Amino acid sequence: MSDAPGLTPAQTAQLAMLLEVASDPKPGNVDRRHDHSDTTFLDFIASSVGALPSLRRAREDGVGVGEVFEDAVRRSQFHSGGNTHFGALLLLVPLVSASYSDAGLGSVSSVVEETTVEDSVRFYDSFSHVDVYVEDDTEIDLPDVNHEGATDEVRERGLTMYDVMEASAEIDDVAREWVTGFGRSFTASGYIDEAYHETRDVNTSVTTAYLRLLSERRDTLVEKKHGREVAEEVRRQAEDILRGGLSAEDLDSALLDEGINPGTTADILSAGVYISLREGGLRL
Amino acid sequence: MSDAPGLTPAQTAQLAMLLEVASDPKPGNVDRRHDHSDTTFLDFIASSVGALPSLRRAREDGVGVGEVFEDAVRRSQFHSGGNTHFGALLLLVPLVSASYSDAGLGSVSSVVEETTVEDSVRFYDSFSHVDVYVEDDTEIDLPDVNHEGATDEVRERGLTMYDVMEASAEIDDVAREWVTGFGRSFTASGYIDEAYHETRDVNTSVTTAYLRLLSERRDTLVEKKHGREVAEEVRRQAEDILRGGLSAEDLDSALLDEGINPGTTADILSAGVYISLREGGLRL
Repeated sequence: MSDAPGLTPAQTAQLAMLLEVASDPKPGNVDRRHDHSDTTFLDFIASSVGALPSLRRAREDGVGVGEVFEDAVRRSQFHSGGNTHFGALLLLVPLVSASYSDAGLGSVSSVVEETTVEDSVRFYDSFSHVDVYVEDDTEIDLPDVNHEGATDEVRERGLTMYDVMEASAEIDDVAREWVTGFGRSFTASGYIDEAYHETRDVNTSVTTAYLRLLSERRDTLVEKKHGREVAEEVRRQAEDILRGGLSAEDLDSALLDEGINPGTTADILSAGVYISLREGGLRL
Repeated sequence: MSDAPGLTPAQTAQLAMLLEVASDPKPGNVDRRHDHSDTTFLDFIASSVGALPSLRRAREDGVGVGEVFEDAVRRSQFHSGGNTHFGALLLLVPLVSASYSDAGLGSVSSVVEETTVEDSVRFYDSFSHVDVYVEDDTEIDLPDVNHEGATDEVRERGLTMYDVMEASAEIDDVAREWVTGFGRSFTASGYIDEAYHETRDVNTSVTTAYLRLLSERRDTLVEKKHGREVAEEVRRQAEDILRGGLSAEDLDSALLDEGINPGTTADILSAGVYISLREGGLRL
C-alpha cells in the first residue's frame, strides 16, 4: 500500500536473506522446496530473524563492521542447523553500513577499506559461533582461525579486516568482493533488475541471476570442498541450463544428491538482492 | 549454538509469522509451495519483515495495543499482495505486549481488558491501510469501518478495543480469542508442543496443529465468505484427514482451486506458534 513506510537498510538485508533462500530452484542450495540434511529452509528463516538486531547496529557511530558481523553471526546461530548466513553477512554488513552512512550504498568500498585491526579480531572471534568450512591446507598467509593464538597474531601483524579479505580473495569469492568494489554483487543486482523488468516475478528474477552468476565463475565453496574439476563442471552445467540444454530442476536434484552446494554464489546473490531492493529495481 | 542469545518477544512473533506461513500443507492457505492469485508466499515474508519495528514498540511505556497494531498493519503492507497479517497481528500484538510486561505471557487477558477507546480508534484507523474482508450485513452493533464517521462514533459511544472485539466475537474467532483468554491460541500451542515432542519436526508440528484446529470449529473467514455449510464441510474434511480418510494435499488442492481459505485458523495458528516458541515447546 502506498502509505507504508520504506524499509530500513537492516530490514532490507533481512528481506534479501529471506528472498534469496526462498527462491527456487537454485541448483544445489537450500530453497523453499529443498533442505540440506543438516541445514533446513526453516533454519535459514530463523537465522534471518536472529540477525536483524545486529544489522540495525550498523547505523550506530563507533560500531565497526567486524563487531556488527560477529554479533550478527552469533545472533543468527540460535538454531541447530549449522552455518546459515556467514558468507552472506560478510557482504551484507558492509553494504548495510554503507547504506546507513551519508555517502550511501556506493561508498561500500570505503567502508571495507577503512576496517581496522579490531574489526579483524572480531571477524576471527566470529568463527567460534559457527562451524564454517575452512580449508586446512592453503598457501594463504593468514593466522589460522582454528589456532588459539590467532587474534594475538592478527594484532601483532596489524592485519585489518580488509587485509584478511585481500589475502583470502584468491581462494574465496566472498572475500574477493571486498577487494573488487563488490563488483559481482552489483552485477547480480543488474541481472535481477533485468529479469524483474521483464517478468515482474521475484522468484524468477532471483533464480535467473543465480544461474547467470554460477555460469560465469567456478563457485569457490564447491572448489574448496570438491576440487577445481567439479566446480568447473557445475559452472558448465549452469551455462548449459541458460542455453536451454539442461533443466535447473535436474541439476538441482543431482547436486543435492551429491551434496554439492554452490554456497558462495548464493552469498553473492543475497548481496545482489539487497542492492536491487535498495535501489528499487526489485519490488514486492 | 549455545552462545546465541534468545529472541525478544518481537523477534519471536516475526519468527512465528514466518514459520506459520512456511509450513506446508495447510489446506487452503498460502504456504511455501502455494500462493494465492492475489497474495503470495513472498508477500507474507515481506509482511513479516515490515512488521517487526512496530512489534518492538510494544515494549515502550505508553504505547497501546491499538497503536502498535495500526503501526504493524501499516508497516507490513508495503508489498502489493493485499491483506497478509491483519488477523495474526490482532493476536500477536497483545501476546507480545504481555510478554514484554513484568507479568509475562499469562497476563494477555489483562492486556486486552485494559485496552482503551484510543486503542479502538487506532484499530479502526488500521482498516485504511489494507483491504480486509468485512461482512456488510451483520447483526453486530458496531460502527461501520467503511463509514467515514466511524471513529467519532467509537469515541461518542466510549467503545474500547476490547468492547469492539467482544461485539465481534460471535462472528469472528480472532476477536473471540480476546474475550476467551486466548484459549484456542494456547490450545494450538499445546497441539504444536505435542507433535513436536513426538516428531522433532517443526513443519509437521505446525501443520498437525492446523488440521486439529480446523477440525474443531468452522473457520469464521470461510463462513463469512462462503456460508455456514461450506465452512462446516471444510471442518468435516479436516476431521476426515485426521482420521486418515482424506489426504491433506487433496483437500489443499480442492480448497485452493475453489478459493476457499481458512484464514482465521491460520491466524490462531500463528498465535500458537508464538506461544510454543516463547515457552520452549518448539525449537529450531
